[in-house]
Amino acid sequence: MTRPLAKPTRRADAQHNVERILEAAVSCLSRDPHASVSAIAQTAGVGRVTLYGHFPSRDVLVEAALTRVLVEGEELLAGLDLTGDPRDALRVLIRSTWLLIAQSSAVLEAAQASLPPGRVHELHAEPARRVDQLIRRGQDEGVFRADLPASWLTSVLHHIMKGAAVDVANGQVDRTDAPRLISETVLAAYRVDG
Amino acid sequence: MTRPLAKPTRRADAQHNVERILEAAVSCLSRDPHASVSAIAQTAGVGRVTLYGHFPSRDVLVEAALTRVLVEGEELLAGLDLTGDPRDALRVLIRSTWLLIAQSSAVLEAAQASLPPGRVHELHAEPARRVDQLIRRGQDEGVFRADLPASWLTSVLHHIMKGAAVDVANGQVDRTDAPRLISETVLAAYRVDG
Repeated sequence: MTRPLAKPTRRADAQHNVERILEAAVSCLSRDPHASVSAIAQTAGVGRVTLYGHFPSRDVLVEAALTRVLVEGEELLAGLDLTGDPRDALRVLIRSTWLLIAQSSAVLEAAQASLPPGRVHELHAEPARRVDQLIRRGQDEGVFRADLPASWLTSVLHHIMKGAAVDVANGQVDRTDAPRLISETVLAAYRVDG
Repeated sequence: MTRPLAKPTRRADAQHNVERILEAAVSCLSRDPHASVSAIAQTAGVGRVTLYGHFPSRDVLVEAALTRVLVEGEELLAGLDLTGDPRDALRVLIRSTWLLIAQSSAVLEAAQASLPPGRVHELHAEPARRVDQLIRRGQDEGVFRADLPASWLTSVLHHIMKGAAVDVANGQVDRTDAPRLISETVLAAYRVDG
């Protein structure tokens, strides 16, 4: 009875370990871009040997973790309706993606230390383009200020989301309050007529 | 002729090395909270032995670097006239201290990993109080929004200053533009009537 199941089960176990390792890598690297392979293995609850069986080096693991958050972010972003009033679209974007974008930019930082810049840029281009496009559309339609460059407004959004994630991790901000705090702050900062 | 000068010169050299090491520590730790003693020695242009002669451990060096930026920040803040319209005061504060505050918060992050929390808090209390006080006064006088907590508004200021320092380091923002970008953004984010 166990024989026909043995192989799929082992495969399922391996898949389960890969999932746990990647989740642990994203969580560790977003808290500390220098997190070690041992720390990631420990968080995942697997041994170092198991981890190295799936990811032969730290660089390979960091790239896999980055790919994971960016693909997840891109899927989330692609599923959002960002047409309509750019202010409403920005609220939707922040509510749905702030934590993932905050994690991505922290993992991105970790990756910048170990991956070739071209690869990092390539992985990051599509989700970054969606956010940038929304901000530029808001400027073109006159609802977001145009006296500051779009690149800075994008930067501000990232700094505030990432900072809020740190505040949540430190217990200074309640996780459920974060999206509202971020939206209220960013929309005010973007408003026309300073 | 050299004999009477020998001792003061050696002392002056030592003082000069301490200054260079502390400057290097602040600059390295604010870019990377995990910067090694070797990296700091290299940036300072001194050998590891010289560095360890002045700072017997990495923890001692990190504490000295933190004390340096915080004392420098406190002196700068104490010398500013922060009375008058809180918006003007905030502009003055940002223009004079943004880079130092951005560096402090990065060195603070490095210190949090190695110093006892009580010591970090103690060193940081005075400059933090001045910023907090200005923001609360702005809320009390009705020129800064009170629909978001003062602690969050303070956090936003720090996140944006720190983020701008990273953007400057990456070459995305020109150093001379940074104070204006920060002020315009923070003052808009703080404005009453969202």
